[in-house]
Amino acid sequence: MIVLDWLAKLLKLPDNFLSTGQGGGVIQGTASEAVLVVLLAAREKKACQIGGIYPENCRVLKTDSSTEYALSPDALNEAIACDIATGLIPFFLCATVGTTSSTAVDPLLALGKITKSYGIWFHVDAAYAGSACICPEFRHYIDGVEEADSFNMNAHKWFLTNFDCSALWVKDRNALIHSLSTNPEFLKNKASEGNMVVDYKDWQIPLGRRFRSLKLWMVLRLYGLQNLQSYIRNHIELAKQFEELVAQDPRFEVFAPRKFSLVCFRLVPPHNDKDCANKLNHDLLDAVNSTGKIFISHTVLSGTYVLRVAVGAPLTEKRHVIAAWKVLQDEASALLCCG
Amino acid sequence: MIVLDWLAKLLKLPDNFLSTGQGGGVIQGTASEAVLVVLLAAREKKACQIGGIYPENCRVLKTDSSTEYALSPDALNEAIACDIATGLIPFFLCATVGTTSSTAVDPLLALGKITKSYGIWFHVDAAYAGSACICPEFRHYIDGVEEADSFNMNAHKWFLTNFDCSALWVKDRNALIHSLSTNPEFLKNKASEGNMVVDYKDWQIPLGRRFRSLKLWMVLRLYGLQNLQSYIRNHIELAKQFEELVAQDPRFEVFAPRKFSLVCFRLVPPHNDKDCANKLNHDLLDAVNSTGKIFISHTVLSGTYVLRVAVGAPLTEKRHVIAAWKVLQDEASALLCCG
Repeated sequence: MIVLDWLAKLLKLPDNFLSTGQGGGVIQGTASEAVLVVLLAAREKKACQIGGIYPENCRVLKTDSSTEYALSPDALNEAIACDIATGLIPFFLCATVGTTSSTAVDPLLALGKITKSYGIWFHVDAAYAGSACICPEFRHYIDGVEEADSFNMNAHKWFLTNFDCSALWVKDRNALIHSLSTNPEFLKNKASEGNMVVDYKDWQIPLGRRFRSLKLWMVLRLYGLQNLQSYIRNHIELAKQFEELVAQDPRFEVFAPRKFSLVCFRLVPPHNDKDCANKLNHDLLDAVNSTGKIFISHTVLSGTYVLRVAVGAPLTEKRHVIAAWKVLQDEASALLCCG
Repeated sequence: MIVLDWLAKLLKLPDNFLSTGQGGGVIQGTASEAVLVVLLAAREKKACQIGGIYPENCRVLKTDSSTEYALSPDALNEAIACDIATGLIPFFLCATVGTTSSTAVDPLLALGKITKSYGIWFHVDAAYAGSACICPEFRHYIDGVEEADSFNMNAHKWFLTNFDCSALWVKDRNALIHSLSTNPEFLKNKASEGNMVVDYKDWQIPLGRRFRSLKLWMVLRLYGLQNLQSYIRNHIELAKQFEELVAQDPRFEVFAPRKFSLVCFRLVPPHNDKDCANKLNHDLLDAVNSTGKIFISHTVLSGTYVLRVAVGAPLTEKRHVIAAWKVLQDEASALLCCG
């Protein structure tokens, strides 16, 4: 309780996410577990009207480069109106801040206003980028979180904490407890029956629970806010340097705006045919990863195959970033020359 | 894959739970997580007909002392018939071997025959008692597991492995994968697309996954089967000695038959009134736990408040069991004298 209140304060989350009021934080295993937990709480609130949540009842809303791959409030409004018109009841929105694919940042404030007007539970998944929000200059990325019902960031991703340690905060802890609590006879005791303790088993899916706050406490005590901020800033600075290297090479292009420590880019073939470009970048990824020197991943944005380089390891230095870029350039040269 | 195949062999699980066929094992966090995973797989198999699983659609079947608190096949048949008559579709049965409350053992073979005839997924939860089944003399408790679709035991309970490490085996791994797999672009790679690897993320709820087989491997390598068997046998022997101590004191009674290392017993008041007896045992539990010397828990069986003493810690010796009994006797004397 104490450690997650601390972390909430570092992130400047609104007070109603703190344990002092009706809210509170809880460590989950992963961001996907966190989403499930709040999804169940949200469903429970409208339980008598909503059946199972099947894939056909999930809406994946399309984004594109016009909003830098962020969810547009218009698209949300349209999807809600369309569902309501066919008798469905929208009850849960998961927005992302620093989404995996491209680190897009959804406009929380605008989305939150919409969900509020429809009584929809608003969850903000900032699994990766949440960590950056401990720096004042990056905190604006979660502006609007005051509209959210729940907020999640993974301390095990970019906060020097070992897997697993996914921090979830909710404004109304009773919504969680109401949908997830269990009370078998053999777990009853004076402390639980007298409401003298918080039973975190009622805030999660499994009954059993590991003790993970100690490792987060260790990180906070060992590094302190300033060192953690420097750590984040250094990674973002290194990614920015990589982005500049990409921009300087006319054979490459930066494909989506870099916000944090992930750079999305691709090799542009001389005759920019889409299929040909996609194949070329796929081949480049294979060639680069086959060197065994670095490992990069990819995504597809609006049908375009895009390479992804992320800075995130504690020991990464500028020389590693430069060396990585050299591998990419060399493999690109080899491909373009033979192709 | 290898470690869970080993463990399956120690338990003499049928070959169709092994990874060599269509089945396989996977480490989950807890038994409750394991149940959820197979429940979802079972639901998916009948998905078009089944809605959400709300509490009103769950059947908790009553047991009593006539079957030593095991689920009776008649009760199951009756519940199924009743549900079908009202248009419901039973699709999942969770039987337990060594259930938490009293370590009752459900008759797997008989229950399995019933579920098979109705196409119901049959899950066996042996979270605690499963460990004992590595001893030939206790293996019979899971006779009939060949009828099960899935089987679960917690290595973190009674198998010298640190929390969390819950081993789940299924006969049809595709049923799990079908209901739980995800395939985002950024996770695609040569190995996964070429079916060269098993993606255990598709066998569980969260996307992220810890590496827990190493600690189980360590336990198996460090102790070996014989030492693990001795470990189990010693605990059961110690519990048996505690049970004998209880039986020798006329003020107490053993309430449910002891099968493993849990003893369910209670203090019987001179005038055996039920409410009075329940209060007395509740008071005894409080008094014992207030000494700070030992910690015991309780349950309620057929309305009777029952005390539970479990032997399960690696360092427990005979002298600890005797000392615990002494605390119980002393506190009982104090209560009966004042009462």
